[in-house]
Amino acid sequence: MSDATGKRWVFFLSDRTGITAETLGATLLTQFDEAEFKQSTLPFINSEDKARAAVEYIDQVAGSSGLKPIVFSTTVSDEVRVILRGANALFLDLFDLFVPQLEGELNVKSMHREGRAHGIADRDTYQIRIDAMNYALNHDDGVGEDGYEDAQVILIAPSRCGKTPASIYLAMQHGVFAANYPLTPEDLENQRLPRILEPHRDKLYGLSIEPDRLHHIRSERRRGSQYASLPQVSFELRQAESLYKRQRIPSSDTTNMSIEEIATMIMQEKGIRRRTF
Amino acid sequence: MSDATGKRWVFFLSDRTGITAETLGATLLTQFDEAEFKQSTLPFINSEDKARAAVEYIDQVAGSSGLKPIVFSTTVSDEVRVILRGANALFLDLFDLFVPQLEGELNVKSMHREGRAHGIADRDTYQIRIDAMNYALNHDDGVGEDGYEDAQVILIAPSRCGKTPASIYLAMQHGVFAANYPLTPEDLENQRLPRILEPHRDKLYGLSIEPDRLHHIRSERRRGSQYASLPQVSFELRQAESLYKRQRIPSSDTTNMSIEEIATMIMQEKGIRRRTF
Repeated sequence: MSDATGKRWVFFLSDRTGITAETLGATLLTQFDEAEFKQSTLPFINSEDKARAAVEYIDQVAGSSGLKPIVFSTTVSDEVRVILRGANALFLDLFDLFVPQLEGELNVKSMHREGRAHGIADRDTYQIRIDAMNYALNHDDGVGEDGYEDAQVILIAPSRCGKTPASIYLAMQHGVFAANYPLTPEDLENQRLPRILEPHRDKLYGLSIEPDRLHHIRSERRRGSQYASLPQVSFELRQAESLYKRQRIPSSDTTNMSIEEIATMIMQEKGIRRRTF
Repeated sequence: MSDATGKRWVFFLSDRTGITAETLGATLLTQFDEAEFKQSTLPFINSEDKARAAVEYIDQVAGSSGLKPIVFSTTVSDEVRVILRGANALFLDLFDLFVPQLEGELNVKSMHREGRAHGIADRDTYQIRIDAMNYALNHDDGVGEDGYEDAQVILIAPSRCGKTPASIYLAMQHGVFAANYPLTPEDLENQRLPRILEPHRDKLYGLSIEPDRLHHIRSERRRGSQYASLPQVSFELRQAESLYKRQRIPSSDTTNMSIEEIATMIMQEKGIRRRTF
């Protein structure tokens, strides 16, 4: 295995999916973007044999790249961790660093039990998320309007401003029931809310985006169309923002926001509680 | 604010969305389920004023609950962190604990720049995830079969075994292009793959589930129907598992797996690289 890229290897290692290790590592590595990293996840390292195989692999990479790899680990078993610590790497384990302080404060021993986070214990959370996702899919783009009583939020915006991804992310990550409804050029012209939304006024949240970006997004769908033209999207967005203001509907310009930020912003402004705690 | 529940408060605190802090904290707290926790996220704590307001709130909770709150924090600014450390709480900060070790190994100073993870720098990642999600939505449940060349994986299973949530999760979390295709009772009877899937045989992954659970899920949709009956679901699942075996299609029983685990398992078995690194 030769590696002449000069990149530093980073491993996300876990006895389960590795998602926590990835999240942790990604957040930390963003603070070091001078360095370039080559990333790999090693999930389901839940036995001493698998730990030894992982160490062998990491050591091989260390040898051929000439740079000590960095390992972000979330592994509950002490026996597994002892083996992993032997790797030729900077070994950073979440449990090593935080559990002693938590044990001290809570005055109990931790359970050293694997497979808890993102795991089978989460049956209720799982069901909430699946229900929320089904809700989002069944109440997408103005469909299923007889089910708005169950919505925690109804996103409104002109076509292609990101209503669907935001609704699905709210469901998937936070278990929030989110519907979405498109504002048509007619709604925007009249500066009136679609009548079907009137009874649910307090659930509405408006999305906006920069005209250039929406022009680009719509052009990918229907290049050269009136629908995608810059004058048309500029008009729709200006009217949408004026409608939000006039109707006192909270809203965000999502141009420079990630999907996580959009979801968090909506939940904060609408006072929505996560259902996945 | 009186709180007679005897529960310990846990805060997830961040200059951005709080998702990293939540993930980190959730993983650690699962090791302490004797204790009961009351959880709250304080996002966008990105100024000294907001930090002071957060400390005030945490101190109020500490006073009224009589138990020192636990704070999981991911806050980049040193100035903000100095203030937060003053709270009457067990303050556990990701950057405090990991950054010094990373700086040592990488031999560079960290940037102390906020808003990197899940942030605007991730425009490419954002677009990959949105494209992947649109792909999943447009290739759900056997629709859009002319686009299977672009699939990284095609999930197959009898109705309601969890194909849609798994496809969307793969897209949202990992940027993976996942289609899914339902196996009909006729496909299962004949033990043949639907012809449309033949050219994409190496992309197939089968899902299965315990009969009782599928009976329950289908009953929520059509109670008392033949479709939901235990004999019918048992037949379909037995035939599906036999089809997977006969056609050498890798598969998993997802009954006791979380959606994260299902996604990770599929990616590992099919050798799919994340596109969101």
